[in-house]
Amino acid sequence: MKKIFFALPENEKLTLQLIQKEQGENGQVEIRKFPDGETYIRILSDVRDKEVFLVCTLHQPDNKIVPLFFLAKTAKEMGAKSVSLIAPYLAYMRQDTIFNPGEGVTSTYFASFISSFVNRLITIDPHLHRRSTLAEIYSIPTKMGHAAALISLYIKNNIKKPLLIGPDMESEQWVSEVAKNANAPYITLTKIRHGDRNVTVSIPQVEQYNNHTPVLVDDIISTGRTLIETILHLKKAGMQPPICIGVHAVFAGNAYQEILKSGAKEVITCNTIPHQSNKIDISDLLLS
Amino acid sequence: MKKIFFALPENEKLTLQLIQKEQGENGQVEIRKFPDGETYIRILSDVRDKEVFLVCTLHQPDNKIVPLFFLAKTAKEMGAKSVSLIAPYLAYMRQDTIFNPGEGVTSTYFASFISSFVNRLITIDPHLHRRSTLAEIYSIPTKMGHAAALISLYIKNNIKKPLLIGPDMESEQWVSEVAKNANAPYITLTKIRHGDRNVTVSIPQVEQYNNHTPVLVDDIISTGRTLIETILHLKKAGMQPPICIGVHAVFAGNAYQEILKSGAKEVITCNTIPHQSNKIDISDLLLS
Repeated sequence: MKKIFFALPENEKLTLQLIQKEQGENGQVEIRKFPDGETYIRILSDVRDKEVFLVCTLHQPDNKIVPLFFLAKTAKEMGAKSVSLIAPYLAYMRQDTIFNPGEGVTSTYFASFISSFVNRLITIDPHLHRRSTLAEIYSIPTKMGHAAALISLYIKNNIKKPLLIGPDMESEQWVSEVAKNANAPYITLTKIRHGDRNVTVSIPQVEQYNNHTPVLVDDIISTGRTLIETILHLKKAGMQPPICIGVHAVFAGNAYQEILKSGAKEVITCNTIPHQSNKIDISDLLLS
Repeated sequence: MKKIFFALPENEKLTLQLIQKEQGENGQVEIRKFPDGETYIRILSDVRDKEVFLVCTLHQPDNKIVPLFFLAKTAKEMGAKSVSLIAPYLAYMRQDTIFNPGEGVTSTYFASFISSFVNRLITIDPHLHRRSTLAEIYSIPTKMGHAAALISLYIKNNIKKPLLIGPDMESEQWVSEVAKNANAPYITLTKIRHGDRNVTVSIPQVEQYNNHTPVLVDDIISTGRTLIETILHLKKAGMQPPICIGVHAVFAGNAYQEILKSGAKEVITCNTIPHQSNKIDISDLLLS
């Protein structure tokens, strides 16, 4: 069956990579706003009986939903065999329970809406926290790629004497896996709280790692608060400036600049969200 | 049954009017964005077994859809008896057919989405063009108010010697109705095209109306191009500066300022969309 890929705005580069790797067709589409703010879409390629892939990463999601929805509906109307959503970064995974009475479980609502208009979802490392699979909320088939192995490979090939660092016990499993595959040592920091605003961090065997490059790994870099805090602790302990690696370059506000300013040697991300820090190509994980 | 009203952002004033008129409860809700752009919502009032009304006019609609959807889902989850959407201005009514191959009939898609999460829709003068009722696209019950009578009343009470003007034959039926109820005369302009860029307008019996105040009436004022063109023609014909009345103050970009600059005496709208030009209160038309 023929595959045809459509890039939603900002996803053009990744879409071209996927087209090359899948030998797919480059779908032509017009997406714009009317002067009154309504979205206009027009599919210029023939999609009849084809597998349609809509490439739309979902950071800052609210503005992206309407064009995506219209595009999927139109493709179906025009006879597409199936419509898959490739969303390397998947939104609305955090509000997965009612933390306070009156809150909506938006991850469920969002998933039910997406499931209502596409046939399949392909994504990378969704933020599964209290849930173990996407199938708990998505009623359509989903495919989930994991960036860990590619991050390990990047570390192995590009960073001299890396020391993987988990900012807390919660991250241990994930960081230890990345470290193992990168043939690198890892340590987990332990926070010692002396009061509300007085937190020190104990770094085990810190002297031993003075000449290593600390590498901080996280799934989503959003506000960057945890990273920045950890960077400051490492600096205090006299370690080298760390390299920060994230899967998803969400970067709320000036987070990217602030992480660099706080003393990171470099901030590196996977290309699930287009950003100047993208250095690890995850497109292979999105192949169907 | 108890009625409870929730204002989506920008709809607070109209919501308070409705609460007073319906003796309803003022629903408390928290709506904000997370730093990464995702929407957070929390309903702070008890909605169990109540009739919930979400007040959300839908100009510039794309950003409003996600909060509205989450709010409706959460209200249902919390035991609301029903959830009605009060959208004095209803979006996505224009793309009601395929004008060019590949276009989506977005009015149908939008209607099916809205119908999937609220139980009822209440609106004012939706832009029914090629369609005769909302029921053709909305699968939920709908209620449609008409501003024409209130506009007539406003003209009667506030404008001296009004002359209603229909900018073209298409508007005749609507303008003649407003004129009749305002006890005012009306004329319809006839465009005479002498070439691509040379259009004159014939104004029947123009001398007779030199001392009248021309009143231009339209349903939606968006870019204002038609109004501005008509204003310039009236000026050329030596008429008084006209008063423009619109139902829906969409005003794309600087449309409001441009209409005034082109020579309108005043621009007046109904309060279906909050705007400084709102002078005609349509809240009575939204009562359930």
